[in-house]
Amino acid sequence: MISGKTALIAHIGYPTSTFKAPMIYNPYFENRGIDAAVVPMGVTANNYETVFRSIFSFTNIRGALITMPHKVTTLALLDSASVTARIAGAVNAVRKEADGRLTGDMFDGEGFVRGLIGKGFAVSGSRSLIVGSGGVGSAIAASLASAGAGELMLFDVNSETAEALAGRLRTNYPELRAETGGNDPAGYDLVVNATPLGMNPGDPMPIDISRLDARTLAGEVVLKEEKTAFILAAEARGCRVQVGLDMLFEMIPAYLEFFGFETTTADELRRLARIQY
Amino acid sequence: MISGKTALIAHIGYPTSTFKAPMIYNPYFENRGIDAAVVPMGVTANNYETVFRSIFSFTNIRGALITMPHKVTTLALLDSASVTARIAGAVNAVRKEADGRLTGDMFDGEGFVRGLIGKGFAVSGSRSLIVGSGGVGSAIAASLASAGAGELMLFDVNSETAEALAGRLRTNYPELRAETGGNDPAGYDLVVNATPLGMNPGDPMPIDISRLDARTLAGEVVLKEEKTAFILAAEARGCRVQVGLDMLFEMIPAYLEFFGFETTTADELRRLARIQY
Repeated sequence: MISGKTALIAHIGYPTSTFKAPMIYNPYFENRGIDAAVVPMGVTANNYETVFRSIFSFTNIRGALITMPHKVTTLALLDSASVTARIAGAVNAVRKEADGRLTGDMFDGEGFVRGLIGKGFAVSGSRSLIVGSGGVGSAIAASLASAGAGELMLFDVNSETAEALAGRLRTNYPELRAETGGNDPAGYDLVVNATPLGMNPGDPMPIDISRLDARTLAGEVVLKEEKTAFILAAEARGCRVQVGLDMLFEMIPAYLEFFGFETTTADELRRLARIQY
Repeated sequence: MISGKTALIAHIGYPTSTFKAPMIYNPYFENRGIDAAVVPMGVTANNYETVFRSIFSFTNIRGALITMPHKVTTLALLDSASVTARIAGAVNAVRKEADGRLTGDMFDGEGFVRGLIGKGFAVSGSRSLIVGSGGVGSAIAASLASAGAGELMLFDVNSETAEALAGRLRTNYPELRAETGGNDPAGYDLVVNATPLGMNPGDPMPIDISRLDARTLAGEVVLKEEKTAFILAAEARGCRVQVGLDMLFEMIPAYLEFFGFETTTADELRRLARIQY
């Protein structure tokens, strides 16, 4: 029940129609009696800095969830950001401190890696192909590196983006083999779709599915459907999979802690959530 | 249940802690299955125009409820406003049209007058003292004039404010006796407190209570408590009263229609509301 005393968490992005977070956080807040609410605010790239600063001038704002297309742009608007956010070059969480300063972090990668670990995937020494080097792909790469990955192959249609990410990873994780090249999925322990492919009907596959090994775990970031065409095709080839919602639920306990709320498990959040496809 | 498809109604003002509207509108929206939500956004006078325009740039914004201290300032930021809003020199409702233009109206006075009529008060030809010529006092004066009042005595500690309002009323309602002078309540059919007196403990009375006749109806705009000291004192003298909440509930059907939602009665809104003092 929203009142004038409720702490607002703005959910900033565009378009808002596919947002899932309000239907996960708000039932949890209600269940636990936490006086906070996640409120979608549809903001386009036009005039973004002004609108972002306006939202953070609200006297009842606690923080924001940042989603497409603003994860990269927002990093430059903050007073400080975590190492993971800086490697990723993107943030998905912003907190307003008591003195008004804005602090950012990036939990996409943490949610993705927590989900893998929960499925028994051995991150340490693993070899992964990450297709897409934007905000979410970079975040997953940074979190896999932090968790001890052995090799990351980075592919992006814009090869300079992939090379820049590889450089940031090598600087921070000298033991990691961070490479750029093609998107042939054969032979990896993990293949991740970190592109928007799958958002729209008729999108091509992010990789050549016929080259995907059955022993490879296929991970997805797209939330448009519970199982995207990529995930369905991977399952048909016998792969274990991790869907976008797994990443989403696993990152929320980290967000709750970041905002200073009582936290819980991804499983409880999933039980309380009211998402419908 | 807020989602990314929910139409937002921003409740703009400061401080937000005393806001009542979210606990009236949102239970109604939920009860009727209307996918809309009133969300408090605490905005101070500093940089108001920028923040106001940022809020109306949200892709999921339908409109706003405007409260103190922004009712007067907002009028100048709109593309168009009703006659009542222009006489009042203030708005409390803003709607975003399909083409992005902003339209304003002022329902404080309409709510107040609907409440009087519901209590059997005969507005036509009536004589009223209105103490306070700010946004809400001006709105009540404009709506009383529109409903056929005979005489309005306007008092404000800033006499120029009262005189300016009297001038706007005379221009639009040549038959009305709109005068300025003292705040002696003796002899009126209606005496209205349209000042903030009553918001804080120890505030003085807006009028000399000992001069209030038992046959006078005493009206209040302050919402801080269900019955302010002024209302309690008027009741003690045998007066009929109209409290701030009466005005608030009576104006909401007009707001709902303005925003394009299915409307209802003040009584149903009152039954569904979850306000607690």
